[in-house]
Amino acid sequence: MKVAPRPPRPDSETRAEQGDHEALRLWLRLLASTHSVEAVVRRRLHAEFGTSIARFDYLAQLARVPKGLRMREISERLMVTGGNVTGLTDSLEDEGLVQREADPLDRRASRVRLTKTGRTHFAAMARQHEKWIVEVLGVLGKQEIDQLKNLLGKIKENAQSQLQG
Amino acid sequence: MKVAPRPPRPDSETRAEQGDHEALRLWLRLLASTHSVEAVVRRRLHAEFGTSIARFDYLAQLARVPKGLRMREISERLMVTGGNVTGLTDSLEDEGLVQREADPLDRRASRVRLTKTGRTHFAAMARQHEKWIVEVLGVLGKQEIDQLKNLLGKIKENAQSQLQG
Repeated sequence: MKVAPRPPRPDSETRAEQGDHEALRLWLRLLASTHSVEAVVRRRLHAEFGTSIARFDYLAQLARVPKGLRMREISERLMVTGGNVTGLTDSLEDEGLVQREADPLDRRASRVRLTKTGRTHFAAMARQHEKWIVEVLGVLGKQEIDQLKNLLGKIKENAQSQLQG
Repeated sequence: MKVAPRPPRPDSETRAEQGDHEALRLWLRLLASTHSVEAVVRRRLHAEFGTSIARFDYLAQLARVPKGLRMREISERLMVTGGNVTGLTDSLEDEGLVQREADPLDRRASRVRLTKTGRTHFAAMARQHEKWIVEVLGVLGKQEIDQLKNLLGKIKENAQSQLQG
């Protein structure tokens, strides 16, 4: 018995139309593929750790900087607004995963860093996260991965030069 | 006189480390390049139209469906939560860009569609948006665009099959 294929899920690409410029269609595909990988990560983070992408990304940024980061730096790296970063910090501090401390270079500012518990908790999530990413992106061969990195690098570089221009 | 190159802006890719699996590094680059294009779009939408990406994307989904969409459908396509869609709808309805109407197939549900003003307003934004995207992604040649679409398509397809599995 043949099973009819499921119709594709509507996503960012659903709005593409025949007359669209090929660069626009590529952009909608870039968005749709990023969102579909995020959807996998979102579902698994929720199922296995009861947490969100925003919280995972926040901890991931701190995990790379033992001396911690200022709120403004976290905000820039996550590309979320200051308000969201304050809310995330409060909630992660309540759970004992991060701590605020005075910045030795600027009395009015504070830095945030992972606690020991935060470090352990993040390490466990990061191991699983890497496994999920390999499952999804591992569909590409080594050469395809290099090609894709190179093409995306050109886009990123051009976008960043426009932002600095 | 030589000018020192600016250090790269910290972004999603900043957290990549030497030991990371190549699939994870590719994922961080995919995120960083998507975010950098979004940053260009965000800045220009704000400067030229005083609006946000969330509002633009909302109108873009509706623009393709003259009969309108249910709130749940909008929410799925935008991958934002129901609460955000309600807030966006209220605000766009107040400005006369969208209207809610009863769904003929389900009395309890309502559909949202663009008003005539909304359609005109969106068309003006969409023309500019396409121009910005061509400026950023047009750094790639035709063959590179096809290559990139193909590679991203494989990732999207694999992620979606995992979501449906």
